Amino acid sequence: MKMTTFSRLIRFLATDGHIYYGDAIMPAGISDIGKVTRAWVIQGDIFGQHQVTDQVVDVKMLLAPLAREDVTTVRCLGLNYEQHARESNLPIPKYPILFYKPITAITGPHDDIPVCSMAQDGEGLDYECELVLVIGKEGKNISEKEALDHVLGYAVGNDVSHRNWQLKRGGGQWGLGKGFDGWAPFGPGIVSSKLIRNPNALNISTKVNGQTVQSSSTKDMIFGVAQVVSFLSQGTTLLPGDLIFTGTPQGVGMGRNPVAWLTDGDQVEVSLEDVGSCVNRIAFEMPSPKL
Amino acid sequence: MKMTTFSRLIRFLATDGHIYYGDAIMPAGISDIGKVTRAWVIQGDIFGQHQVTDQVVDVKMLLAPLAREDVTTVRCLGLNYEQHARESNLPIPKYPILFYKPITAITGPHDDIPVCSMAQDGEGLDYECELVLVIGKEGKNISEKEALDHVLGYAVGNDVSHRNWQLKRGGGQWGLGKGFDGWAPFGPGIVSSKLIRNPNALNISTKVNGQTVQSSSTKDMIFGVAQVVSFLSQGTTLLPGDLIFTGTPQGVGMGRNPVAWLTDGDQVEVSLEDVGSCVNRIAFEMPSPKL
Repeated sequence: MKMTTFSRLIRFLATDGHIYYGDAIMPAGISDIGKVTRAWVIQGDIFGQHQVTDQVVDVKMLLAPLAREDVTTVRCLGLNYEQHARESNLPIPKYPILFYKPITAITGPHDDIPVCSMAQDGEGLDYECELVLVIGKEGKNISEKEALDHVLGYAVGNDVSHRNWQLKRGGGQWGLGKGFDGWAPFGPGIVSSKLIRNPNALNISTKVNGQTVQSSSTKDMIFGVAQVVSFLSQGTTLLPGDLIFTGTPQGVGMGRNPVAWLTDGDQVEVSLEDVGSCVNRIAFEMPSPKL
Repeated sequence: MKMTTFSRLIRFLATDGHIYYGDAIMPAGISDIGKVTRAWVIQGDIFGQHQVTDQVVDVKMLLAPLAREDVTTVRCLGLNYEQHARESNLPIPKYPILFYKPITAITGPHDDIPVCSMAQDGEGLDYECELVLVIGKEGKNISEKEALDHVLGYAVGNDVSHRNWQLKRGGGQWGLGKGFDGWAPFGPGIVSSKLIRNPNALNISTKVNGQTVQSSSTKDMIFGVAQVVSFLSQGTTLLPGDLIFTGTPQGVGMGRNPVAWLTDGDQVEVSLEDVGSCVNRIAFEMPSPKL
């Protein structure tokens, strides 16, 4: 046995045809988990007793770093970066603004992002790079001081959004226009919270078709990681496998002049310092024949 | 073996100390599943292969009709009754208004509803009786014609809400003020969709401390059951164990003159024709010593 817990958790299809949880073996000089080609196999319960074995396997394709059955609830924050609140012409929130995505929104770091007919209608398809927290330990009414003990690790995610459905046709509730299948890519892996000294000072960015459109730091977050975990746990039990998308910095398509929406075939890359990148392609779906 | 599937699914602690899924044995002249005292034990997967056995056990306490691990996503609709949209001074929505609750909000038909410190602050604690749909079959882009085939059955639920957090302090997003632990009681059982000919014509009501405060029919729903299932499945996979709370009729505390909020010790009873009642007591929690 190599060690008792992971440094960089990945989930992947191996060249042997099996799906594994693994601890990424980082090639020299590379810090993006998305580029990993080999991993030590992890056995056991990711949130409980598990061991990183000395069995090394070759990675064929990275998957979402948690299987759907290992994720309980996906929480997201809105307007949690000062500059983004400003570009949205909205006041700096006094409390974290919470919404949810269904677990069916989760997808992997290199998967296509499907766009159904309903979300192809009109303009508004947008990206949002975000720091994603993974809860590792159950807790309720968690103090800020204890909050980081409940975080298993960090990933980067894309809170894919359709602005018309989010803001205009959804009665003001954001969940519908952000909750379609595959609209929460995250990964490329989960870096253990032991390895990231200060999650509130990481560079975060987005490229669309190779061009940088968001470039900021988690320093600009209004509510930092410990505050977010503590606040969201008030009267509410956070469970292992809960994900928290912590909001996006300025530079979204909606905030640009002129506005710039994603379209079929676009490649979107969201990146977080010390973690790596998710690179996903926008894939418009054919209309359903049943409708 | 008695039959291959259930009529009225309950989950309960039996007098023998075990927790079972069961098919309620309704006493003569009683239609409220909440009053059941005996059940046939169900074996197998509620959403797949299962059988109602001829083993009869005594019910000690009804639990939420689905275990937390059998529920995937809890969706809720806002403003889905015409008269309620009017009392809220809001326009009739053009599309269903969707928000979510976390699975930790689920609780049983006779459990206390805990109210944490944060939600005791100020006024605003309110009830909402709702028809709850339980999805039994996976589907995406479901047509209205096929929609009812995806519904396992019906229950009644209480979309417990704190109006200040829901409407004022949550940045306009409703999830936080409706998502605390135990704020989605439902049950008392799930009546199979085979038994309910028209879910869009059921009497629905709420009593607070024995006094009727909501009394309406699901006829007043703006979007009926088939429309709701079809709409929510566009681009979004609905999974077995998904719950859909379909909105509340007029008569909520916020809509009354003068407004009438729930407080510690109040008993709230939500009832649905052909299903029965959930009766829950409001229980203010002590402040957490950690904060």
